[in-house]
Amino acid sequence: MEYDLSTVEVPPPEKMTEEGVEAIHDVSIQIMEDIGIKVAHEEARDILAEAGATVDEENEIVRIPESLVDDALEKPPSSFTLHSRNPDRNTGVGDGDTTLTSTYGAPNVLRYGEGRRASTIADYEDLAKIAQMEEVIGCTGYNLCEPTDVPQEVKHYEMVPRSLKLTDKPVMGSTYGEERARASLEMVGIANDDRDLSKPYMTGIINTVSPRTWDTRMTGGLLEYAKAGQPVLISPAVMANASGPSTLAGSFALANAEILTGVVLSQQINPGTPIVYGLPSSNVDVRYGSFSIGSPEGGLFVSFAAQMARSYDIPVRAGGTLNDSKTIDDQSGAESMFQLMIAMFSDIDFMLHAAGILNSYSTVSPEKYVLDCERIRYVQRFQRGYDLNDETFAVDLLEEVEPGGHFLNKRHTLEHSKTDHYMTKIFNRQSYDDWESKGSKDAFAAAHDRVNELLDTYERPPLDEDIEQELDEYVERGKEEALN
Amino acid sequence: MEYDLSTVEVPPPEKMTEEGVEAIHDVSIQIMEDIGIKVAHEEARDILAEAGATVDEENEIVRIPESLVDDALEKPPSSFTLHSRNPDRNTGVGDGDTTLTSTYGAPNVLRYGEGRRASTIADYEDLAKIAQMEEVIGCTGYNLCEPTDVPQEVKHYEMVPRSLKLTDKPVMGSTYGEERARASLEMVGIANDDRDLSKPYMTGIINTVSPRTWDTRMTGGLLEYAKAGQPVLISPAVMANASGPSTLAGSFALANAEILTGVVLSQQINPGTPIVYGLPSSNVDVRYGSFSIGSPEGGLFVSFAAQMARSYDIPVRAGGTLNDSKTIDDQSGAESMFQLMIAMFSDIDFMLHAAGILNSYSTVSPEKYVLDCERIRYVQRFQRGYDLNDETFAVDLLEEVEPGGHFLNKRHTLEHSKTDHYMTKIFNRQSYDDWESKGSKDAFAAAHDRVNELLDTYERPPLDEDIEQELDEYVERGKEEALN
Repeated sequence: MEYDLSTVEVPPPEKMTEEGVEAIHDVSIQIMEDIGIKVAHEEARDILAEAGATVDEENEIVRIPESLVDDALEKPPSSFTLHSRNPDRNTGVGDGDTTLTSTYGAPNVLRYGEGRRASTIADYEDLAKIAQMEEVIGCTGYNLCEPTDVPQEVKHYEMVPRSLKLTDKPVMGSTYGEERARASLEMVGIANDDRDLSKPYMTGIINTVSPRTWDTRMTGGLLEYAKAGQPVLISPAVMANASGPSTLAGSFALANAEILTGVVLSQQINPGTPIVYGLPSSNVDVRYGSFSIGSPEGGLFVSFAAQMARSYDIPVRAGGTLNDSKTIDDQSGAESMFQLMIAMFSDIDFMLHAAGILNSYSTVSPEKYVLDCERIRYVQRFQRGYDLNDETFAVDLLEEVEPGGHFLNKRHTLEHSKTDHYMTKIFNRQSYDDWESKGSKDAFAAAHDRVNELLDTYERPPLDEDIEQELDEYVERGKEEALN
Repeated sequence: MEYDLSTVEVPPPEKMTEEGVEAIHDVSIQIMEDIGIKVAHEEARDILAEAGATVDEENEIVRIPESLVDDALEKPPSSFTLHSRNPDRNTGVGDGDTTLTSTYGAPNVLRYGEGRRASTIADYEDLAKIAQMEEVIGCTGYNLCEPTDVPQEVKHYEMVPRSLKLTDKPVMGSTYGEERARASLEMVGIANDDRDLSKPYMTGIINTVSPRTWDTRMTGGLLEYAKAGQPVLISPAVMANASGPSTLAGSFALANAEILTGVVLSQQINPGTPIVYGLPSSNVDVRYGSFSIGSPEGGLFVSFAAQMARSYDIPVRAGGTLNDSKTIDDQSGAESMFQLMIAMFSDIDFMLHAAGILNSYSTVSPEKYVLDCERIRYVQRFQRGYDLNDETFAVDLLEEVEPGGHFLNKRHTLEHSKTDHYMTKIFNRQSYDDWESKGSKDAFAAAHDRVNELLDTYERPPLDEDIEQELDEYVERGKEEALN
């Protein structure tokens, strides 16, 4: 064989030089050491004081010295595995592949033919089934939609068991205060028949309240997950122009300081707790006062997060198929593809909102979900590249086919045309006339066909009967306690 | 000032190692030296024979030795300027910026509210006006649509003068045989009051007929442009699975051999003729036998072309807002954004089809055109990056705004929020309710508003009266001769 070469992954779209990364870190340390971060949770303040931070109890402001940050950054692993009851579904976070996860928290749903309406627990079930069916999705998530038809006090008891029963992929859980966090962790322990959580099974999002605030609920959530050794996605949603400076540098440094505070706290509670450097940040469009997650500046946040987390050698969560469109149209396609590409090219380790989101985190759509999976497969095909060898150069074939001839009916073509080329599942490549004769379906309509196909062919993954019964009993008990 | 740093451009998404580039070149030389290229044009064969190629006259096959290729690659410039009558509109090709150019040759048009129909010369005028109005577009192009309501023998006399009158940006011309090429070059010479074409004013596309064929018409066009010292885009539209091997490596090597043949030919005719390494190639979806220009494999062709042309130190043409969608929807948005990003990140020097295209080169749409310009501005904003300095870190402001407070009404925010952040012109960022109250317009409808706005505010750029008269007379004479 004369040639035997493969292609390489494209380099990450990094915008900062090494000096830029250092400058951000330095300014973040200035914010933590000199200006201070408000930590509303008393136990957390005590832990930080104990570790050597200066605490202004009256204003709940904590000032964390650089040495504490340096020390904390040594402890979390550079990668970890999220486990599920089906070991084939375990997913590495920080191992080079991206764990693609459903969207999170949308109070509205858009379904083909229905228009937008409030999300329900039935939507949640459909979304969980689609998450199970779409192979590219690595983690089911939590809060796939925000169901408005269940009592809010027990929504974690409605959502977590559904995620655990309808899928056998790793899941996420509630981080909203100690109680819900603990219940979520207990449920995943039961489902995996490992009540002590000897391995990472469940991750949760810890949002800060930018600027410079760790509130009681989220800090409580962090404490529970860290004590249980379960990974946390520390995710300040700094919004440049509103909860952060207009200039990206300032918002980056602020977000980084809030994340580093969480790193210090988690490693003080339980050294080695897996941490994911999370950044769902973007900017506010001052014309409307709206949070724009589909903006190019949002893409700069993703690129920034990836570069920063790599400098700290911890996994990173950022990006997704993010967009501000109200419906499924050219804007949703363009913005989602842009944000997805920046994230995938940046080697984001954990991508929340990889599928399903619309309208600045406020709407989820099953049709958008499957379109996003089409986008993901598409970008993965580009990433896969091609081989350069005697078989793929096919010089004999190039000689055999005469000038102006064609390769269509050659065996070499038949052998390679279905394996080497991505076959779209939704995006249309028919002739115009064929497309028209089949109803002139746009991408929204074509996606609806795929949603129906997935839901029609969905099968529940096996779950041990005793375990399911135990889970159901736990949930019933939890609900009763919470509602009475 | 403590910090004064800027960001860098993201590295091009190159997939091949240096060995890969060399392997492609080697196999291309094998195709040119051993297998041979059919050159149907007699004068061209004579020129190549004279230069040292072996010519099989019976089969019109030319075999070009490596030394001739090496020699030819030394001659074309690594960059050049395309001129127009308004020097502010001159555009560099190969100088680091991308010259963004309209789409080319679509026989159908899709306009909002009308559905798809055959393109007309009135559509051509609207597209030229929009090309003039959209600042990001650097070259008006030619064949902005393929007008079906003018006699085909004189369509270059209909299109070129309209491009020259309705815009003052550089234009493109016909390459379809010597006569049309010559007429196009004469028209641009008149419009620029430089009948000897002392500088590059007009570029044209030279398509090969893959595999391995240079036909009479296109070779004739190449000869005319080269003799006039006008730049040519050598552009084999190899289609993997049909006019090239299924495996990308083979199709790349084939396309490269066809391009190098054009480089040798052009440099023999007129050494130093500006050449653009062009690659509008992609794959055929064997399920439908359709040419898929929106495919991820198409993106691999773009990345390949950029890397290959850089290795030869000549400018490159590839990519565009390419897609296979029949309408303006999530698919058009996603595929167009993907292809655009790969091209822009790859530092493509000349991007034909930067705006307007749908459905595998067969439909053009004014609404798609302005949406593509929105995409371009969006990606340019990402590329622009951000500064890291005392003003942008805004540490004083970070200290001033209390924990959980906001930056919205700060002077720093007012100063930066409109300049540092991209303000969309079509993509919607309003609240859902505001969007709904304004008619729930999707991106297609919103784009239609922008098309109307641009056409309503369009003003014809000045053109000297005598020159316009001379051009009109030239056109009338040419039409008469061609039609009688």
